Amino acid sequence: GNFKVKIRKKARYVDEEKCTGCGLCQTKCPWKVDSEFDVGMGKRKAIYIPFDQAVPNIPVIDREHCAYFLKGTCRACEKFCEAEAIDFEQKDKFVEVEVGSIILATGFDVFDPIPIYQYGYKRLDNVITSLEFERLVNSAGPTDGNIVLKDGSTPRSIAIVHCVGSRDKNYHEYCSRVCCMYSLKYAHLIKEKTDAEVYQMYIDMRCFGKGYEEFYDRISEEGVNFIRGKVAEVTENTTNEGEGRLIVSCEDTLLGSMIKVPVDMVILSVALEAQPDAEAVARLFNISRGADGFFLEKHPKLDPVATTTDGVFVVGCCQGPKDIPDTVVQASAAAARVLAMISKGSIEIEAA
Amino acid sequence: GNFKVKIRKKARYVDEEKCTGCGLCQTKCPWKVDSEFDVGMGKRKAIYIPFDQAVPNIPVIDREHCAYFLKGTCRACEKFCEAEAIDFEQKDKFVEVEVGSIILATGFDVFDPIPIYQYGYKRLDNVITSLEFERLVNSAGPTDGNIVLKDGSTPRSIAIVHCVGSRDKNYHEYCSRVCCMYSLKYAHLIKEKTDAEVYQMYIDMRCFGKGYEEFYDRISEEGVNFIRGKVAEVTENTTNEGEGRLIVSCEDTLLGSMIKVPVDMVILSVALEAQPDAEAVARLFNISRGADGFFLEKHPKLDPVATTTDGVFVVGCCQGPKDIPDTVVQASAAAARVLAMISKGSIEIEAA
Repeated sequence: GNFKVKIRKKARYVDEEKCTGCGLCQTKCPWKVDSEFDVGMGKRKAIYIPFDQAVPNIPVIDREHCAYFLKGTCRACEKFCEAEAIDFEQKDKFVEVEVGSIILATGFDVFDPIPIYQYGYKRLDNVITSLEFERLVNSAGPTDGNIVLKDGSTPRSIAIVHCVGSRDKNYHEYCSRVCCMYSLKYAHLIKEKTDAEVYQMYIDMRCFGKGYEEFYDRISEEGVNFIRGKVAEVTENTTNEGEGRLIVSCEDTLLGSMIKVPVDMVILSVALEAQPDAEAVARLFNISRGADGFFLEKHPKLDPVATTTDGVFVVGCCQGPKDIPDTVVQASAAAARVLAMISKGSIEIEAA
Repeated sequence: GNFKVKIRKKARYVDEEKCTGCGLCQTKCPWKVDSEFDVGMGKRKAIYIPFDQAVPNIPVIDREHCAYFLKGTCRACEKFCEAEAIDFEQKDKFVEVEVGSIILATGFDVFDPIPIYQYGYKRLDNVITSLEFERLVNSAGPTDGNIVLKDGSTPRSIAIVHCVGSRDKNYHEYCSRVCCMYSLKYAHLIKEKTDAEVYQMYIDMRCFGKGYEEFYDRISEEGVNFIRGKVAEVTENTTNEGEGRLIVSCEDTLLGSMIKVPVDMVILSVALEAQPDAEAVARLFNISRGADGFFLEKHPKLDPVATTTDGVFVVGCCQGPKDIPDTVVQASAAAARVLAMISKGSIEIEAA
């Protein structure tokens, strides 16, 4: 390829040369907003480092919530910054580069389970998504890694519902490939951190990767309950029968009957889906998308990282759901394709 | 790395410069032996091209079956070769090269199901492995792609038994990752080529890749019967009850009872396992193997193609079972690692 790329570098309002990453501005900023990284379960300041171990480890001012940008007063961060790195006058910059190859690694979005009304997400307390649980269980997360219910108490039982939005003709027909394994990981973490009973409601356990089946075996031995069946609905336990605030109604296909499982918390293992702007990105780079919404590779078997546009490559979950090992390998594969072109020195391209 | 590699180039007894690949020698050679590529289901000659589309497309003489090497007479191939390419005097050559990187791509072996006595492999006619079926259904295979029983008739019903040697503590605990999808492919091919009923006996359907779940859906709609359960045994149908020469006894975990399915043919979807010489290869290249017998990568998530020996990389099924897309991607990833080292010009290595 032979591309001219115009990149917008958004104003950070912090001088990257001067900032030492001390974090004092974050501490002193008086304005709290919901943290995107904590999926709204925690707060961040209007000046903030997007997440721990961000690179570079330099904060950014959120124009839309910063009091100075909204009302013209405050500048607390500026006052406290010893390095004098705050710069409210910064403007967005445009950088133009000429490149021969472009690797798209725009990732995925998580499926929003609100439309699956019967699962009660956002209607019932303690029905959370897998991403929310990921933050909950993270020691740098909003609860310092404590698995707690909305009222702060520890759950006595947790149901993990597989295939929420995946393998479902109403939403996404495809399998999201990673949910079985993270659901097993969650079961392990719950068992490690609490005394809660864990129920996995699954259709098929897809433990296909290296060491995955062995992990599944290990979790089974930890006393996790596996129930093969699709969950019909999650309701509030109004009668208080059984120990649990919620009732998960589920067909147990191995028993051949409907069962009701009382639990305190329900984790919805939500599908991975294409980014909402995938269509615009595809148009911008002149590549195609599959029926599933993900970017289409040139050939599923023989050319899995190239696209129909020479010089444009796709890696990671923007090409389809995949886990970390598969993503790392794909990223290296795209690097190989690019390196191969670069090492040729010059290549012939088709006329536009 | 900084490796001296001594490579044995086995004598082909055919001059690669002179041979035109016309194939006349194969036709004229009077000595037939079981074809390795057709897993013994077809024959090849003592001079033969290992498989269609082999690169280079040049035959090789099998010393162990060639009459000239065994008894000193014949030389039919030599007589008929117009290019005078046959050279019985060729000797094995040793080539020494110095290289900085080595990519191991030694592949896998298929699990031999004879030890699973109750499945009847090699005891009962028409119990075959998935690899044997692959050859049977291939239009360049021993039956020109016709799906036939041992007596030449067309099967009226076929059972495909998943997880033979995989997910089984007695043999391999791991999942072989590819069997679910090729079993679905077989079902499709059987439906396309015959009127046979197809039964899939599975534990979990692991259709995790891009477009795989959609393929599973499509096969379900083609009228394939899915039975969730582990097969207990395959026996001969001595009573001739039901239409089938064999009886597959299986726990149907969804019905919650044992069932007996009469079929004419049983395909055992056998596990992928490490090559028998994997230990010797690991020692030669100073790398490790996992408990599953496959070569161990440096880090399962972050460095999936490198090994603990700098400059030695592992790709494809020698690192663990994987399908074609995943293998192609991994191969490119290893190429990237090697290219990255080469493009540095010179690198520092640790003292031996």
